[in-house]
Amino acid sequence: MSAAHLQALREALAQQGVAGFLVPRADEHLGEYVPAGAERLAWLTGFTGSAGLAIVLAETAAVFTDGRYTLQLAQQTDAALWERRHIQEEPPPTWLAAHAAPGARIGYDPWLMSEEAVERYAEAGLTLIPVANPIDALWQYRPPPPLGAAEPHPLEYAGVGSAEKRAQIGAALHEAGAEVAVLSDPASIAWLLNIRGTDLPHTPYALGFALIEADGRTELFMAGEKLPPATRAWLGNAVALREPAELADALAALGGRRVRVDRAGTPAWFAQTLRQAGAQVIAGADPCLLPKACKNLTEQQGARAAQARDAVAVCRFLHLLHATAAEGLTECSAAHRLLGLRREVAGFRDESFPAISGAGEHGAVIHYRATPQSDREIRRNELYLIDSGAQYQDGTTDVTRTVWTGPGEPSDEIRDRYTRVLKGHIAIATLVFPAGLAGPHLDAFARRALWQEGLDYDHGTGHGVGSYLGVHEGPAGLSRTARPIPLAAGMILSDEPGFYLPGSYGIRLENLLLVGPAGFAAARPFLRFETLTLAPFERRLILPALLSEEERAWVDAYHARVAAEIGPGLGDSERAWLDWACAKL
Amino acid sequence: MSAAHLQALREALAQQGVAGFLVPRADEHLGEYVPAGAERLAWLTGFTGSAGLAIVLAETAAVFTDGRYTLQLAQQTDAALWERRHIQEEPPPTWLAAHAAPGARIGYDPWLMSEEAVERYAEAGLTLIPVANPIDALWQYRPPPPLGAAEPHPLEYAGVGSAEKRAQIGAALHEAGAEVAVLSDPASIAWLLNIRGTDLPHTPYALGFALIEADGRTELFMAGEKLPPATRAWLGNAVALREPAELADALAALGGRRVRVDRAGTPAWFAQTLRQAGAQVIAGADPCLLPKACKNLTEQQGARAAQARDAVAVCRFLHLLHATAAEGLTECSAAHRLLGLRREVAGFRDESFPAISGAGEHGAVIHYRATPQSDREIRRNELYLIDSGAQYQDGTTDVTRTVWTGPGEPSDEIRDRYTRVLKGHIAIATLVFPAGLAGPHLDAFARRALWQEGLDYDHGTGHGVGSYLGVHEGPAGLSRTARPIPLAAGMILSDEPGFYLPGSYGIRLENLLLVGPAGFAAARPFLRFETLTLAPFERRLILPALLSEEERAWVDAYHARVAAEIGPGLGDSERAWLDWACAKL
Repeated sequence: MSAAHLQALREALAQQGVAGFLVPRADEHLGEYVPAGAERLAWLTGFTGSAGLAIVLAETAAVFTDGRYTLQLAQQTDAALWERRHIQEEPPPTWLAAHAAPGARIGYDPWLMSEEAVERYAEAGLTLIPVANPIDALWQYRPPPPLGAAEPHPLEYAGVGSAEKRAQIGAALHEAGAEVAVLSDPASIAWLLNIRGTDLPHTPYALGFALIEADGRTELFMAGEKLPPATRAWLGNAVALREPAELADALAALGGRRVRVDRAGTPAWFAQTLRQAGAQVIAGADPCLLPKACKNLTEQQGARAAQARDAVAVCRFLHLLHATAAEGLTECSAAHRLLGLRREVAGFRDESFPAISGAGEHGAVIHYRATPQSDREIRRNELYLIDSGAQYQDGTTDVTRTVWTGPGEPSDEIRDRYTRVLKGHIAIATLVFPAGLAGPHLDAFARRALWQEGLDYDHGTGHGVGSYLGVHEGPAGLSRTARPIPLAAGMILSDEPGFYLPGSYGIRLENLLLVGPAGFAAARPFLRFETLTLAPFERRLILPALLSEEERAWVDAYHARVAAEIGPGLGDSERAWLDWACAKL
Repeated sequence: MSAAHLQALREALAQQGVAGFLVPRADEHLGEYVPAGAERLAWLTGFTGSAGLAIVLAETAAVFTDGRYTLQLAQQTDAALWERRHIQEEPPPTWLAAHAAPGARIGYDPWLMSEEAVERYAEAGLTLIPVANPIDALWQYRPPPPLGAAEPHPLEYAGVGSAEKRAQIGAALHEAGAEVAVLSDPASIAWLLNIRGTDLPHTPYALGFALIEADGRTELFMAGEKLPPATRAWLGNAVALREPAELADALAALGGRRVRVDRAGTPAWFAQTLRQAGAQVIAGADPCLLPKACKNLTEQQGARAAQARDAVAVCRFLHLLHATAAEGLTECSAAHRLLGLRREVAGFRDESFPAISGAGEHGAVIHYRATPQSDREIRRNELYLIDSGAQYQDGTTDVTRTVWTGPGEPSDEIRDRYTRVLKGHIAIATLVFPAGLAGPHLDAFARRALWQEGLDYDHGTGHGVGSYLGVHEGPAGLSRTARPIPLAAGMILSDEPGFYLPGSYGIRLENLLLVGPAGFAAARPFLRFETLTLAPFERRLILPALLSEEERAWVDAYHARVAAEIGPGLGDSERAWLDWACAKL
């Protein structure tokens, strides 16, 4: 299949007069969550990971992804057709500069790449040409754009009304010298207009675009079918509704005006179209990104409540695993049991992503997805890793625990690795730091205990999490490849160090943390984290001697909190287990 | 003076038809070390710090610097003429976008700013126009360019011959798809051609430019007066010598060729001139930066030897302070005594920078420079901070110690702060980390012990150090504002956390560290640091109870090493003191 698609694409490129073509895993919103019709990379290469890029030249072709998907990339793509590359270790512009003929014209779809991404190729001395995407003509039965209904996101969850948000964003635009801003991120639009959608599984986006003026007036470009009367009424008169097909005309009408466009997050098509129309394009981050990431007090309270309810399902699941030693459960059936327990939680809407349920060697596949083909029993005396989360209207959850199925004792090596991952988790959770610090500056704290033994993990330590939005949310992240966006009060970030021994086992320990003021007087503002997620760690995997006094005290205090807050919501046998699981080390 | 200069500049700008002008503290090489004739920022504003920028508009003007120079900026500039700003907290493009009229034409000197720097203004929506520098016409008695002689840097120190280096750089250019590279950094030229110069105090640069071809042939643009016959012979026939005035013609002759230019480190004039000539400009780092930063084995051995010799002078100085309780010494005379002791060291060439010698409250001025006006006695029972270094042909040194003059006991607060700074120093010195990590990812380890108490310091933790070159050397640095250049074996970096209580005291503890392989087998290469600098810490300022077991063991082992390696070079009373200073905590 892939060979035929690749061949067809090469023929189309020759007809379009370009020597190569870039195929990012992206849609017109440049985010992680894309509808089925945007899975051009999977159509072309077979690779279904959530991040990657293919480059097709006449004779050679390469596909790139990051460390999370290295194994998956090798499994899903044909080595005879594709060079497989680590996207950080050999960046695509470098690969292309080494493989393309000097001066070759390389095509790209300006709807699927940002100006900043295009520039990286230009800086490498390459000539990139925007072209109509040849895959769209070749792809038979390509799924059409989704037309899920958008619904109001009520004030009891949103905390702040859309009119107030629009006034705030408009004022910020004016302050920064812009008259209009392009919004291409569905999360920004959802936050700004207090709506949620059903275009994608797990992530409540309503796909669309918007233009916001400095006075707060907003034009929303979204298919009319997606906007039922109640949502139209909720949006009100200050939000003009237009069809996506009107977008080009709307931009053309902005000639002579100062328009802010996110160079990194918005398709290059926007700035190109605006410049052709004579607009003055001002580079600047999507103005909703930071306000959205910094949850207001209502959203913070919602997050605490959602996590506490979610924790009941997680603890019941962990009890089940412990009580049965996972007897008779497979990766798929276990994830299904957890989902069933979550469905009993008040306000449950959806999983926030398909659970990663990996036993033994499958735990080492960082973004493993159990399928009917790969599913296997969870066995006695092995590690089992479960990374899962849920969407509630008051908050999005994401939690990972790694348990020992027993009944035997884990090896010293496994306990050593688990304890080092836990030390890293605690190093982040207990951090006190000045405002201005960003994820790339802090990520290493989670790794030091592993580094001492020559160990590491090939993924970031944490990502932002939305408020009934994406379980991965920018702009801040606890990762050294994240943009250096300073952490700020109200942000929710995951803290999830891990350790993976390919072919043997994987360990990951994840809680969500809320950034807040440190609460002491200092010459400059200091911040600290509040742990939101409540579920015990696996005491049988902890080597207390490897923990410092402070680390041991942290585990004991956290466990005491879990027992006190979650215990009352459990049945008797579950509660007895929780008390055992949360006893002092 | 400043008022008249500012007024004259504003009149010149009006005549040139621009609404404003940028005045960076920079010369045509965009480095930190500049000749007197490039001190335009000081001429205009009075501010003499080593990093800063002024923006002059018709009605308003601002001058920006970083945290090291905040106090100095306030002291040296006139608040009636200049807004004073923190360059990170309010970046100049942001300030300018808020203060310039929309569409205003802002002038800049393309010899004094990189393309990357210019682009930051363009991204903020500003219109920048390259202009002839109006200050050069206004500045009476502006010092002419220096004409110091360049000398060979012999193989016994350089380790690798220039022909070999040129072949290596040429091959790297070819590999990256370039035919020629522009070299505008005098450190790169000094390293590539194995020459050192005398154009600047403390830093042995011979100012000039070079073009290197993929086959290694090199054109050096340097005033003929600076090249005595021995140096010409040393450079050999494969290095063509041309006058700086021929540079524009040489670039014009590169039409049609692929020329690599460092977007961040090279003046915008080069890429602009090359593009006008029809050359294809390829963005890429100065190809000498990394090879130069990764010292070869000869340079590494030289660094160890230079540090050990230098340490004798430092230890003799610390003994002197201790034996006399600094009685009768002032900041200036103490620094002079240290310089005198260094002059006795074999191979001493120069200080590597003017020593920072600060007693009591002067220690809190991060880049304090004692002058006859500011000089004061070093008093009993206070902290005294001395940051100094030397140039030897086999290596450049840089060391900071903070001592307690006694004879009384320091306060608990001071001991707490000193010990937290020491903990930060140790956290870096003992780090084991995978290849690929860069300074911005590691800097925070040095701060955690301070952060816990709501404390911090407003400078990077460390900088690269050259091999008989700049005491500040790129491209890597242990700072969160440094470029994320991965640390690599052979790099020398300072480790110098601090704590400063303005008006009271300053603490800084600095050793130089050499990056090397961790020496154990792991799935990927790991690195560690080797401490090069040898001088005791101040035991009277250490609170052993605040150190972990591992930290205490590190101090004891380091002190034992200092006593063993430096003791034999000292006199009897000095040695007795060193044994006391280096005894177990």
